[in-house]
Parts: sequence; structure tokens; C-alpha cells
Amino acid sequence: MTSQIALYAGSFDPPTNGHLDLVERAAQLFPHVIVAIGRNSARQPLFSVDERLDLLRAACAGFANVVVAQFEGLLVDYARSAGARVIVRGLRAQTDFEYELQIAHANADLAPELDTVFLPTRTRHGFVSASLVREIARHHGDVSRYAPPNVCAALRAKFHAP
Amino acid sequence: MTSQIALYAGSFDPPTNGHLDLVERAAQLFPHVIVAIGRNSARQPLFSVDERLDLLRAACAGFANVVVAQFEGLLVDYARSAGARVIVRGLRAQTDFEYELQIAHANADLAPELDTVFLPTRTRHGFVSASLVREIARHHGDVSRYAPPNVCAALRAKFHAP
Amino acid sequence: MTSQIALYAGSFDPPTNGHLDLVERAAQLFPHVIVAIGRNSARQPLFSVDERLDLLRAACAGFANVVVAQFEGLLVDYARSAGARVIVRGLRAQTDFEYELQIAHANADLAPELDTVFLPTRTRHGFVSASLVREIARHHGDVSRYAPPNVCAALRAKFHAP
Amino acid sequence: MTSQIALYAGSFDPPTNGHLDLVERAAQLFPHVIVAIGRNSARQPLFSVDERLDLLRAACAGFANVVVAQFEGLLVDYARSAGARVIVRGLRAQTDFEYELQIAHANADLAPELDTVFLPTRTRHGFVSASLVREIARHHGDVSRYAPPNVCAALRAKFHAP
Amino acid sequence: MTSQIALYAGSFDPPTNGHLDLVERAAQLFPHVIVAIGRNSARQPLFSVDERLDLLRAACAGFANVVVAQFEGLLVDYARSAGARVIVRGLRAQTDFEYELQIAHANADLAPELDTVFLPTRTRHGFVSASLVREIARHHGDVSRYAPPNVCAALRAKFHAP
Amino acid sequence: MTSQIALYAGSFDPPTNGHLDLVERAAQLFPHVIVAIGRNSARQPLFSVDERLDLLRAACAGFANVVVAQFEGLLVDYARSAGARVIVRGLRAQTDFEYELQIAHANADLAPELDTVFLPTRTRHGFVSASLVREIARHHGDVSRYAPPNVCAALRAKFHAP
Repeated sequence: MTSQIALYAGSFDPPTNGHLDLVERAAQLFPHVIVAIGRNSARQPLFSVDERLDLLRAACAGFANVVVAQFEGLLVDYARSAGARVIVRGLRAQTDFEYELQIAHANADLAPELDTVFLPTRTRHGFVSASLVREIARHHGDVSRYAPPNVCAALRAKFHAP
Repeated sequence: MTSQIALYAGSFDPPTNGHLDLVERAAQLFPHVIVAIGRNSARQPLFSVDERLDLLRAACAGFANVVVAQFEGLLVDYARSAGARVIVRGLRAQTDFEYELQIAHANADLAPELDTVFLPTRTRHGFVSASLVREIARHHGDVSRYAPPNVCAALRAKFHAP
Repeated sequence: MTSQIALYAGSFDPPTNGHLDLVERAAQLFPHVIVAIGRNSARQPLFSVDERLDLLRAACAGFANVVVAQFEGLLVDYARSAGARVIVRGLRAQTDFEYELQIAHANADLAPELDTVFLPTRTRHGFVSASLVREIARHHGDVSRYAPPNVCAALRAKFHAP
Repeated sequence: MTSQIALYAGSFDPPTNGHLDLVERAAQLFPHVIVAIGRNSARQPLFSVDERLDLLRAACAGFANVVVAQFEGLLVDYARSAGARVIVRGLRAQTDFEYELQIAHANADLAPELDTVFLPTRTRHGFVSASLVREIARHHGDVSRYAPPNVCAALRAKFHAP
Repeated sequence: MTSQIALYAGSFDPPTNGHLDLVERAAQLFPHVIVAIGRNSARQPLFSVDERLDLLRAACAGFANVVVAQFEGLLVDYARSAGARVIVRGLRAQTDFEYELQIAHANADLAPELDTVFLPTRTRHGFVSASLVREIARHHGDVSRYAPPNVCAALRAKFHAP
Repeated sequence: MTSQIALYAGSFDPPTNGHLDLVERAAQLFPHVIVAIGRNSARQPLFSVDERLDLLRAACAGFANVVVAQFEGLLVDYARSAGARVIVRGLRAQTDFEYELQIAHANADLAPELDTVFLPTRTRHGFVSASLVREIARHHGDVSRYAPPNVCAALRAKFHAP
């Protein structure tokens, strides 16, 4: 076993405290962590890829072994090109576990040298999701317990909240 | 991050190919892996703890960074005493996912410095379990696709199969 | 404990017998029940909010302690403004239980004074949903077992069925 | 609607903070709450029915509209004899949701005048169960975050812990 | 395709209306159906194998293409010896779906020439199980909606009910 | 029991090896099998209905008792008009089991003479879905293990892959 690179990919639209908890734990488990925003042309995001890169980079600045990136195309292709050996995924009781397992098995079939590890979301973040944060912020609710300060500020600016 | 010790605990009554696949993958993900048999006085096992230690040690002999052990009491207490920082668990579609998450959350509450990672069982081992292997062997069925050779031999001896 | 106001919110597009069974049971459990249509600008409904208000009011006319309303924004904000202390949700085996729990936990975090109760859908309504009723009515099928008479009539008018 | 009696039944072996959170919330939702220990001859409990009655009564002493009782036989028969109209159940992400629904449907068929309401367990109690508390206490672990003080004392006495 | 033999195996302790609904539907789907009681030495049944054979035979007497049998050992071995090509299983929302899938996959691996088909339990039988019927009958409750008349009579005799 | 017609309906956009495994098994279980493409005006497919008919017909040419068709409207109406008595559905661990059960129960209510049987997807196809195949092909990945040769060729042509 040599020094492993772990890949944590997602939409991060916007990054939440749940995402950052995963980043922190992955950074403790693995020598190098890439946090990567997948470009997904199908959906219209709230924040552009560039905005999300800025938000994630600022929020992850404290982790010395974490880099933030973006990619297009299949996750396994990006993982290979980045030299990653492990895909990290969060797993909530309140998640599509079956879907996550399907993706993990598909990725294992497409790229047998890659492995997937699931980290159980901590109970206090179990219900936090990017779509929930967007929904609350859209109605000018308080998201300060669910997202880092720079994301909260960006949400206020986006929705012209006081 | 320093060199992590991962703990993979279970009953291993007997060890199956599904268990060994997990050991192999954990050994690739983490610098040191402890495979530990939990003594559980409540249930009457098929193989004694000593028999299982022998079976596991022989089956894991090829992994340089894996040691086999046994423990009694709470998993988190053993993990602390062994210096482990990560608990490794297999996760099957055909498993009690909710139960696994409950245990992970309880362990996180009891020992916040410990983390749990789940590895999805490979599709070809998805239905393999120790109880299935025992049941097939009890009726003199062929378990050679589900357990390593030394375990198959031990099962044949246990059930007086040809 | 004083006299509780329970809130049963949804899209009701259209109201089904499953919805009305919930209303009836909530009306037996709690002194006051508000049945509230959530305005959701994202989705294009089959019936307008005004049409749904009319359909629900007629269907709920027999319940003395039930009022029908509509709201926009976060459910917890509306509950607070309406003085509700309990959110009532139906729970089907054939439902997104995980999703319901996530929403309940989010609402409990956003508004700790609010509680959520789930009523298990009766077996005979277990498969009935508004989308199923729309789909059957769209193809001129018989929905009279799944929706109240005024809704059936409105569906026939909407789809020009005989 | 008249003043409802709600029934919250279980083994309570021992009562946990998760149980008491349910009692508190039921006591806010309904005018009268019966917390009832079901005698179950099949399983050998850690605490006798009398011990559990004492533990529950002390722990529920602060709730004016809660009484503690015990019963034998079918839950629906006891509910009828006690005049209860509502059965209250806790619902965890980490629970046997399917099993709970089966029981609710069976009870609705056996006693149509009874309804069942599920309260989602709060996230901080989501992993707490009586069996977990017993297991930790058996190994002299700290259960003070999971059970009320009188239960913790009883567990220490039972397991000769310091 | 030639005339298929379908195997429906279980404990049938006792047979319920849910079981008989499955038998009836299997008898309409396949030319020949074997309903087989698996001898399971581990559990102490309420009715002996001979009693269950009698109960099932009487209850299935109206189906011309159904035979009732019993077996010991692995299901796949019995299926082969009986010439069955299809294993029939009921599937409830309120069942261990994951467990059923695990068994189906194990059987497909042990005997690739055998296939498994799942029939969804009808909604009105969704909560009926042999253990529920035993539990109600044990407390002298009414099981006449859940089991055929001869089984109800046998339960009354077993529990000395009026 | 007379000679049964089984109906296997879906979008088949495109047909995958998972679909074809189901067709093969249905063709062994039932005397006649109709594989039918449901026209669904709501979603924009990758392949037109005519393209999918051609792909399915070529892929199913080897099954003597299988015909390929298309339909519009409710599945139960089409099943009746085609004389089918059985609806065949694949069931994956990685699927929406609850949704499948809801549809089966709705269909049983709409057309009681129709039955639904679920075939468990083989483990090696468990993660294969039409949307996964489209996604991989869109990024010029290799789908030859997941779809028949004629579908792979059609995907290459559609996405201008080499």
C-alpha cells in the first residue's frame, strides 16, 4: 500500500456542513483528498461551477491535504486521470442507499482498480442536503447551522436576503 | 494524518470469501488492518474462537499488513486499546443497512475519535454469508465457491462430509 | 396541553380517497385540523390552486373541525403563522419513508416547538396516489374507487372523458 | 372529538432517554397517556416487570397526564379495556419500519376503532435502544447519555459496576 | 418450454389465508405446483410436520394441480429431486425483501437451472403472517379472517379456546 | 390453467443485457411472451419507438415464443387487449421495490384477473440500467458488457463514437 488518493465528487450546489464533515473525515482517513465538482449539463444549478469552486476552496482552505477541482464525463474516467484509488461517498439513513450501491457496483465493474468507501453521515447532519439548504435560503430562512459562513453569505446575495 | 490502523471485526463463523474480499480491500486502503473475532457468549458458535483464529490466520497469511486477533466486550473499547482509528464494515444490498448505521452512530457517540467506513460487498459475494455457508455445509452441499479451501476442509471435518 | 391545531399539507393535485382518509383520522385525533395546499411554483399542476381549494373544501365539508387553506413558502413558517403545533403526514409502505423522515428531522431542527406525527395509510389506500389517479384519468380509466365524486367529475371534465 | 387516551406500549427493559422523549411528546399531543409494559413470557428480561414499573414511574413522575401500567395478551385487547383510542409508536430510521407497519395494519384490522400514530425519533436518540443500553452497561460502559439517572443506577447495581 | 413444475416451500406453521392465496395464484400460473413443508430442526413448531401436512392437504384439496409434500435439507436439492424448475415466493411490503433476494441469488448460484419468481402479496393479506396468527390465537383472539376454517379449528383445539 | 401469455413492458431505451436476461427467463417460464414498449409522451427518449422496436426485435430473434410490440395508455388496458394474464417485472436490490409493489397493487385493483410476477435480476446484471448504459455511451465508454451488440452499434452511431 502506497499513499492513497481519495476522490470525493458531487454537485456541491452549494457546499453544506454535511459535505464539509465528509471532507474533514476523508482528510483524516486518506493521505490525499480531491474534492471534485462534476459538471452536469442536464441540470440548471443555482451556483455556477466557478462559483462553487470558489465556495469549496474557501471552505476547504484549512485542510492541508485537500485539493478542489472540477470534471466532466464519467467519474471513473476522471478518477483514473487524477490517480485516485478510492471514491468516497457519504451515506445517510435518509439517502438512496440502493442507488449508491448500484453506482458503486457499476464503478467497480467499469474500473476494478478503484474502490468505493461509504462514510455514514453524522446524526446531526443526517437531514442536511444541498436542496434543503437552497429551499430554506430561497424563503429567506436561516441556514447558518447547515452551511459554512461563506456559503450563507453567497446564498443571501443570490436571494437578495437581508 | 499518520499511519492508520483499521479494525475489521466480526464472528467469522466461519470466514467466507466475502470476508476475505473485505480483508484484501481493507489491506489496500489502510496501512495496518486488524481482523478481530468478537467473543460473544450469547450464541453457540459452530467453530470455537481458537478454531476460527486458526482458520482466519491461515486464510490471511498472504497479507503482510494484516494481523488476526480476538476480543471480548465493547468494540469501541477494543478499538481504543488496539490503537485503531477506523472501523471497517462490509455493506451488502442484502444486509441490515439500518442496523449497521445504528451501530456506526452509537460507536461515533461512544468514541468520537473513531470513524466507520463501509465497503460495498462485491456483487459476486453479495449473497454469501457465514450462516448460508454453514447451512449448505450441514447438508453436505458444495461451498467451495463461498469459502477458502482451509475453511471448506474444516467444514467437511465438522459435518463428516466426504 | 391545550387544544392542539394539526396541519396536514400537500399538493392535493387532485385530492384522493387516501388524502380524505387521513383528514378524517386527523380530525378524530386532534381538536382542529388545517388542510393546506402548498403552492409550488416549480411544478405545473393539473388543477390550479383555486380549483384544488374548491375540490378540497367540498370534499371536507362534512368535518366540523377541519378548515382548508393554501400557503406559500416553508411549511414551518406557515405552521407557526397558523398556530399549528403538529404536522400530520401519511406513511405508506409504498412511500419514500427515508425522505419523510429527513423532512421531519429538518422541520424539528427549524422549529423545535413543532412535532410531526405519521399516520400509516390504510391497506386499501396503500397504492393510491394523486399521480396514479391523474394517470388513470388521463387514459379515461375508472378512478371512482380512488377519489371522491366531485374530484372524479372534475377529472372527467379536465380530460373530456364521457 | 373528545378527550383522547393514547397508549404507548413496549418492553422498556430498561427505559431509555429515547422512550422518555416519546412519552414527553405524546403527553404534549394527547390529553391522557398510558405507558404500558407488555408482559412477554417468551423472552427473559433483564429487569422484572415490577422493577420496570418502578423505573418508569419514577422517570415519568414529572408528567401530570401520564400513567404507567402493565398488561398481558394482545395490545388491542388491552387498549380497548383501557379506553385508549390511539396507539403511539416511535419510528427510527434505524428501525424495522416494515414490521411496524405490519403491526399497525394488523391492529387496524383487529380493532378498527383504534388508530396508530408514529412519532419520528429525534436524531440525537436515533441510535439509542434498550438492547444497546444493556450491552454497554454489561461491559461497564457509560450509559448516562442514553438513560435517565435512576435507570443508570439500576444498571450499575445489576452489573455490579462501580 | 415444457410443462413447468413450481415449488412453493415454507414452514406453514400454520397455513394462513396469505399462503393459500399464493397457492391459488401459483396454480393458475403454472401447470403443476408442489407445496412443500420444510422440516427445520432448529425451531420448535406449534404444529408437527404431520399436522401441518394434514392442514395443508385439506386446505388445498380444491386445487387439481397442487400436491402437498415435505422435505428436509437444502431447498435446491429438494427442487431438483422433485423436478421443479421454478421456486415461488410471496413478497410483502412488510417482509424481508433483502433476505428474499439473498436467498434467490444463493439458490441461482447453487442451481442455475432453477428460477425464482416472487408474487406480491395482495394488499388485504399484507400484514398476515403465521406468527401473527399464532399470537392472536394464543390469546383466544379471532383469526377467522386470516386462516382457513380447518386451521382455525386446529388453533382452537391447540389453545383450548371455546 | 391454459396456455398463459406473459407481458413484459418497459421503455427499453435502449434494451440492455438485463432486459434480455429477463426476456430469456420469461420465455422459459411462460408459453408466450409479449415484450412491449410503452409510449410515454412525457419523456424525450434517446431512441424513437421505431428504433427501439427494431433493436428489441433483432435482440429477441432467437426466442421462438417471444413477440415484440408497442402500446400507448394504461398497461392493464393493453394487457387485456393482448390477452395477457401475467405481467412480468424485473426486481433488483438496486431498484425501487416499493414503487414496483405500488404499481402491482394498483394493477391488481384495476384488473383483478391479471397477476404480476417479479423475477430477481441476476447478480451480474444488478447494477445495469438503461440510464447507466446511456450515460456511459454518451461519454464514449465501453458498454459491450451491458448491452447486446446491435444496441452497442446503435449507441456508437447515436453518439458519434469510434
